[in-house]
Amino acid sequence: MTTPTHSFDQAITLKALGGDRFEGHTSAPYWNMIGPFGGITAATALHAVLQHPALLGQPVALTVNYAAALGQGPFVVTARAARTNRSTQHWSVELTQDDSHGVPAVVLTGSVVTALRRDTWGINDTPMPDVATPDAALPAPWHSPIEWINRYDVLQLDGPLPKQWDGAASTAGAATASLSRLWMRDNPPRPLDHCSLAALADVFFPRIYLRRALRVPAGTVSMTVYFHADAAAMHATGDGFVLGQARAHGFSAGFHDQSAQLWNTEGSLLATSVQVVYYKE
Amino acid sequence: MTTPTHSFDQAITLKALGGDRFEGHTSAPYWNMIGPFGGITAATALHAVLQHPALLGQPVALTVNYAAALGQGPFVVTARAARTNRSTQHWSVELTQDDSHGVPAVVLTGSVVTALRRDTWGINDTPMPDVATPDAALPAPWHSPIEWINRYDVLQLDGPLPKQWDGAASTAGAATASLSRLWMRDNPPRPLDHCSLAALADVFFPRIYLRRALRVPAGTVSMTVYFHADAAAMHATGDGFVLGQARAHGFSAGFHDQSAQLWNTEGSLLATSVQVVYYKE
Repeated sequence: MTTPTHSFDQAITLKALGGDRFEGHTSAPYWNMIGPFGGITAATALHAVLQHPALLGQPVALTVNYAAALGQGPFVVTARAARTNRSTQHWSVELTQDDSHGVPAVVLTGSVVTALRRDTWGINDTPMPDVATPDAALPAPWHSPIEWINRYDVLQLDGPLPKQWDGAASTAGAATASLSRLWMRDNPPRPLDHCSLAALADVFFPRIYLRRALRVPAGTVSMTVYFHADAAAMHATGDGFVLGQARAHGFSAGFHDQSAQLWNTEGSLLATSVQVVYYKE
Repeated sequence: MTTPTHSFDQAITLKALGGDRFEGHTSAPYWNMIGPFGGITAATALHAVLQHPALLGQPVALTVNYAAALGQGPFVVTARAARTNRSTQHWSVELTQDDSHGVPAVVLTGSVVTALRRDTWGINDTPMPDVATPDAALPAPWHSPIEWINRYDVLQLDGPLPKQWDGAASTAGAATASLSRLWMRDNPPRPLDHCSLAALADVFFPRIYLRRALRVPAGTVSMTVYFHADAAAMHATGDGFVLGQARAHGFSAGFHDQSAQLWNTEGSLLATSVQVVYYKE
């Protein structure tokens, strides 16, 4: 096994332990506050499926449930083909990490659907919104103290982090009060694939920050990604920018949703994604 | 165990087999074309979690992956608490059914997140669209040959099934070309709970039918439901109508997505849901 050179590929590297088990290790460059960036963990879970010798086809859907923060160190991914049909395959995924007593504890559960994708009639019914091109957008001027954020080039368009955490209610309409749009890509640039696309779907900061202008404790509990990009769209994206758009629909009793869409610069819809986010207060 | 009187409760009835295992049986009143209505199977998977003695809290998120059509007869649901935290719990769910050789085969995989939901700040950022009230809407005039459809009162608003399957492209804009809106409730009426809400999220016919005016082979592969309704909203809904709205964002290489929102007549957002649907041609 040669060591990959890009920090993203290093972070999602898995060593086959035989059968359905793979060993990974948390990555300092993708560290968040009390655990790894959720997007890199999702990408690692997907990576286990994609390097499993029994894999059929390519990803259609990915769901990951974040059961606990990972600690720094090794972990085990188990990817099991629960059902293999003629053209679809259903994977159950689990990440475990030894607790302080050396007992494996579940830190993530999830599922992946893969399929032999065939040429069919198709249409993009979600045109890319009319935004400034990456050339015309301004990069974030700061170096973030949160390590994983520096692993992405982000050009913020609409809905940036509030400048003042003053709890001022948004004056925008309901549909845009929690809306962010941004150009993003790996830093340094890296050709897009299903794993990096899954991670990009989790780059958006919690919508509750934007909606309330309050930095309440918040974290993703579950995320689902549907992959729309065919091979041509993935190839055309290359290592270029991806436009991401995210908003919430409802905030209730400690949880809010988020819906996101991702396009390449040509306007191809690459992925749609939802997540549910825990928040306090 | 007393036998429930409503067909929905009969259909999701599970007999505890001990440990994490429950036995169910497919229900003729909820039969679809080559297997049960996907919504009733999702509700049954959730029901196993909700009647598990180790349950903590109430549902936040449900994902089900339809791995194969169930045949008529008994099946086993396994609901395992993969991780229990102080206020959240992560469940892995699997349905198996014996194949023709008597060997259990996986027919559904899934996951459920439950949580102790607490009073927090909240807001509905997705107001109910302006539609005719259920009193003013017309019920479907037919008795469907597809049995499960008769288990729902449906009042169609926008985006009905095409009258002619002529493959005529929609003349609506991209955002509405696959949009349906309808009032729906159990038939006979039944007070809404998390299980029946999960089933309602799957009542919409495949968006590809509407988008193309072609009845190509199609079926849901994976569905995710996020529960926004608090106890008050659930209680206020009672056995009244629920407004459902669904649309697709992209159709590509044999799969399309669907996003749905569900409100009660008071405009409370009850659930948001996505699914990915296989289609042919």
